Amino acid sequence: MKKLLITGFEPFGGDDKNPALEAVKRLEGLELEGAVVVTCSVPVVLQRSIDTVIHEIEKHKPDYVVTVGQAGGRCAITPERVAINIDDYRIPDNDGHQPIDQKVEETGPDAYLSTLPIKAMVKAMQDKGIPAQVSNTAGTFVCNHLFYGIQHYLRETNIKHGFVHIPLMNEQCTDGSKPTMSLDSIIEGLSIAAQAIVDNDKDISFGAGTIC
Amino acid sequence: MKKLLITGFEPFGGDDKNPALEAVKRLEGLELEGAVVVTCSVPVVLQRSIDTVIHEIEKHKPDYVVTVGQAGGRCAITPERVAINIDDYRIPDNDGHQPIDQKVEETGPDAYLSTLPIKAMVKAMQDKGIPAQVSNTAGTFVCNHLFYGIQHYLRETNIKHGFVHIPLMNEQCTDGSKPTMSLDSIIEGLSIAAQAIVDNDKDISFGAGTIC
Amino acid sequence: MKKLLITGFEPFGGDDKNPALEAVKRLEGLELEGAVVVTCSVPVVLQRSIDTVIHEIEKHKPDYVVTVGQAGGRCAITPERVAINIDDYRIPDNDGHQPIDQKVEETGPDAYLSTLPIKAMVKAMQDKGIPAQVSNTAGTFVCNHLFYGIQHYLRETNIKHGFVHIPLMNEQCTDGSKPTMSLDSIIEGLSIAAQAIVDNDKDISFGAGTIC
Amino acid sequence: MKKLLITGFEPFGGDDKNPALEAVKRLEGLELEGAVVVTCSVPVVLQRSIDTVIHEIEKHKPDYVVTVGQAGGRCAITPERVAINIDDYRIPDNDGHQPIDQKVEETGPDAYLSTLPIKAMVKAMQDKGIPAQVSNTAGTFVCNHLFYGIQHYLRETNIKHGFVHIPLMNEQCTDGSKPTMSLDSIIEGLSIAAQAIVDNDKDISFGAGTIC
Repeated sequence: MKKLLITGFEPFGGDDKNPALEAVKRLEGLELEGAVVVTCSVPVVLQRSIDTVIHEIEKHKPDYVVTVGQAGGRCAITPERVAINIDDYRIPDNDGHQPIDQKVEETGPDAYLSTLPIKAMVKAMQDKGIPAQVSNTAGTFVCNHLFYGIQHYLRETNIKHGFVHIPLMNEQCTDGSKPTMSLDSIIEGLSIAAQAIVDNDKDISFGAGTIC
Repeated sequence: MKKLLITGFEPFGGDDKNPALEAVKRLEGLELEGAVVVTCSVPVVLQRSIDTVIHEIEKHKPDYVVTVGQAGGRCAITPERVAINIDDYRIPDNDGHQPIDQKVEETGPDAYLSTLPIKAMVKAMQDKGIPAQVSNTAGTFVCNHLFYGIQHYLRETNIKHGFVHIPLMNEQCTDGSKPTMSLDSIIEGLSIAAQAIVDNDKDISFGAGTIC
Repeated sequence: MKKLLITGFEPFGGDDKNPALEAVKRLEGLELEGAVVVTCSVPVVLQRSIDTVIHEIEKHKPDYVVTVGQAGGRCAITPERVAINIDDYRIPDNDGHQPIDQKVEETGPDAYLSTLPIKAMVKAMQDKGIPAQVSNTAGTFVCNHLFYGIQHYLRETNIKHGFVHIPLMNEQCTDGSKPTMSLDSIIEGLSIAAQAIVDNDKDISFGAGTIC
Repeated sequence: MKKLLITGFEPFGGDDKNPALEAVKRLEGLELEGAVVVTCSVPVVLQRSIDTVIHEIEKHKPDYVVTVGQAGGRCAITPERVAINIDDYRIPDNDGHQPIDQKVEETGPDAYLSTLPIKAMVKAMQDKGIPAQVSNTAGTFVCNHLFYGIQHYLRETNIKHGFVHIPLMNEQCTDGSKPTMSLDSIIEGLSIAAQAIVDNDKDISFGAGTIC
């Protein structure tokens, strides 16, 4: 039985909920075909976000790690393709840090690609009616920071890791000014994506690029 | 016991489903506090859309009528404020009609306002975590045509009527290019709005306007 | 020689410029084929906006009136199709009035359609490479208020009138968060639209509707 | 006198113009403070795009290279932060190549950061009223391919290079469905950005990140 660690960020930026954390709570202990899900919550804080996930990786020794965060304004569940070695925070993190144009890891390369089968994840969700798409930018805030930091930590291991952005939940934006997704749909999508990770040692190939 | 007629359009424009019709199927027979819901499906055809709903009104003699249609691209359930006396079809209807700048009713006024408590409907949905907003344009296609036609037909009666646009369902747009809403959330929202109609003989007042 | 009055709103909502006013300043005295342009500025204030334009109409006795306002978020110059008998202000006007769900004219009809050749205006601008489109909602703020009020005032005259929304100028939104248009393009578009008004006693017909 | 090479892509995807090429034609020979501009056009073709620009670099021996391409849907001139080692073409290039999930350079790193002073460029444009913003994704089409390929080629030189995406020109989208910018504004923006490159050996620092 393999093990898949799914992590969810705590609320930030004035919100009192984060759909990532809400989803993770309900995914704890989920039994997939061939794997079991363990979860943890992650503080929206520069270095502590990375330390927290590393601690959980050392504790659970998972085969796969999926870090999950909220992407206000997106319509779909979006596995990220690339983490970049940049911190450029538009708002402070939950401890008041607001780095501008600093590196995540001083000696790291400019970027790391996801080692999850992002296209298989997207296709599995779409096939079950859950809006999903590959994203080519994880931003420059704590989400990208964590994505980069964990890829850097895992770079010489066999543990696969990637970041998935999810939309706001319905109740986070009720005035129609931004797209949202019901928590039920988010959880269904993440469960499908988790199964696709276990099922696809090697990613599938189909066009999911953007022109710009 | 009052009676509320909710109508849903059939698929159009190449889609094989219409969330309005899917929702209406599951709302049939719903028992609200003080009212019961009856429903019907409506063809996406110029004059026949109006004739169909008039037929159902004569058959059921409802106290309230809510006509419902799909609004691809919207994030929220949007009760419409106004129907205008214009047909300007960007695509043909399901019978191939494509009127340009014709009137819905040759001798009718330029517009009719909704007689439903649109703000109470919006607030009730928002309070329960369902994205909702007043819309100030129902477009110039069959949705607006039906809205106008039924308001014209009911203009000297006590039967209240308005049109509600709903987002695409998740499975109608799975690539993240347009916002969607789960069918469960759409049905929950319409049920809440229906109850708000029964509960609010007179609309409530709060700002829900747009600058442009 | 015919006379065309173009009016432009003053800044509002915290902005220190309004592209409508900037454009109008540069259109003053413009000689079209068969007509001359006169202009005035209009306060963003409930009743005074209407009074100001009526005063200018009585003074200039124009054949055509084009009231112009700013539409933050739009990509194109948009002649409006319909004014509705509703004030529902999301923000206060420049004198602090903020009516909610009040009528513009207590005894007026629910709406007035534009009496300008909106499609000819749109086509003329598009043909010269200026983004333009018919809009089916002028919102529920002072722009719609003025549009409705002037249509009501002119309803039994031969003076044609309509409202045109224009995008933000480049310098009003330099961070890329909203579409903008250069003032030169705005002025070119309005000049082309003005000529189209003079050239088209009767509007042309082509599809420019919206589904919702 | 320093030399700045600005390159512009040819039309693609069915368009008969590309604002990058139109802009570049008018920037040829531009004299900046302390530098002169040379230009060339670039085919929208996988390997030939890189070969063409390398040829021009060898010919002109510039101090700075700015590759420019069209970004349909963006509102602002956007210097790109990062090029990724991925080709994932949603449409074929102008020679019919459509690679999916291939590397730009088989042995290259996952990404290269721009070596231009992107924040100084953005600030200079914004200060002069031209909408501008840092972008964190150049997509996965020929624009990103060229950006990556040239960074790889220049990686051990002192020649600075980055990619800049520009909006559609007004005349490319006249129906208001996508934001556009006048060619005059695009050229003004690129000129300002070019001067900022010459003026800023080291980039300035201010927050221009995104949350996601």
